[in-house]
Amino acid sequence: MKKYSQNQLERYPIYLKYFMELREEGVDIVSSPQIAMKLGYSEEQVRKDLQAVSLVPGRPKKGRQVAQLIEDLESFLGYRSSVSAVLAGAGHLGGALLNFPAFSEMGLEIAAAVDEAPRLAYAKIGGKVVYPMEKMEEVLRESNASVLILTVPSPVAQEVASRAVRAGVKAIWNFAPVHLELPESIVIEDVNLASSLAVLTHRLGSKN
Amino acid sequence: MKKYSQNQLERYPIYLKYFMELREEGVDIVSSPQIAMKLGYSEEQVRKDLQAVSLVPGRPKKGRQVAQLIEDLESFLGYRSSVSAVLAGAGHLGGALLNFPAFSEMGLEIAAAVDEAPRLAYAKIGGKVVYPMEKMEEVLRESNASVLILTVPSPVAQEVASRAVRAGVKAIWNFAPVHLELPESIVIEDVNLASSLAVLTHRLGSKN
Repeated sequence: MKKYSQNQLERYPIYLKYFMELREEGVDIVSSPQIAMKLGYSEEQVRKDLQAVSLVPGRPKKGRQVAQLIEDLESFLGYRSSVSAVLAGAGHLGGALLNFPAFSEMGLEIAAAVDEAPRLAYAKIGGKVVYPMEKMEEVLRESNASVLILTVPSPVAQEVASRAVRAGVKAIWNFAPVHLELPESIVIEDVNLASSLAVLTHRLGSKN
Repeated sequence: MKKYSQNQLERYPIYLKYFMELREEGVDIVSSPQIAMKLGYSEEQVRKDLQAVSLVPGRPKKGRQVAQLIEDLESFLGYRSSVSAVLAGAGHLGGALLNFPAFSEMGLEIAAAVDEAPRLAYAKIGGKVVYPMEKMEEVLRESNASVLILTVPSPVAQEVASRAVRAGVKAIWNFAPVHLELPESIVIEDVNLASSLAVLTHRLGSKN
């Protein structure tokens, strides 16, 4: 199996978004230099990135077909298949994620949510039912979920993640600003807003 | 000025969070091996990371004072000073960010929001007033904001960012899944959920 770096994987949705805009504008063909200029990557990087996910080689000076690129990227990113997820913690951030229609286009189907607040029990947010937290294992099993989206408060994040893993979840999309200790076989992808903000304010401070 | 890598900067809020938990539990002293074990980093990395932000050297076998570490990290991360921000796009995600009390502890004061939806004009979300989008320049100036938090829909992200930069903003915290083209001097920090999800689903797929 080919190895893709984290940075490279992160670029693919950005390419895809751009190609979909081109398709919308009726553009059929796009060249690596054009892509590089628009997205701020080097031409060499664009060529390497696209070569790595495309079955059709690029032809120098002819450009690439936008429709083919979209097909290749959607397949590579798994947007054409579908992974089932449950979201734990339907507060402000969790609620915002439940309301993102784009996730299902990206192959992530949020089947349901769980939250410990009694006032949310059996409420619907973004069209998904919020079940009581103690039913998490049941909800995971019934939705055959392989992903847990973790948006609970930090102090309970580890416990909720461990429970989900014991119930069969294979990956945690972790929005809690904590380091999770889980078996090696579990995929953990962290989105840490405090870390992102630290990078921003540090860079801002360095420039002043 | 010392150089810090992006990964290193991203680790500091995670250290800080852990040290604050220790303080809460009444723990005064912590050693690098303890920190390394808890957070899943190597001991050497922990030593290097803390050395880089601390004025007080660590003493082998004595451990470090938790209170001092907290003070050092809060100063380094700018949590003890304050940067003013305006949020553009008060939809689901923007609304969730307006409701995060933690940002002000992290030195980011969201002064106000702007949104183009007439139904949101002059509403309050998370205690912040949402002004009409056409007043953005005025709101930026009056709040003396150096940061724009960008949570508008992708198609208008570039235009809103450019307007903010012309109005004097120095940094963009960009949640729109697009590549922004802005002057070199502007700090851009991207939080791209589509990219994060791509990494997760790819890793999940590789394990199956």
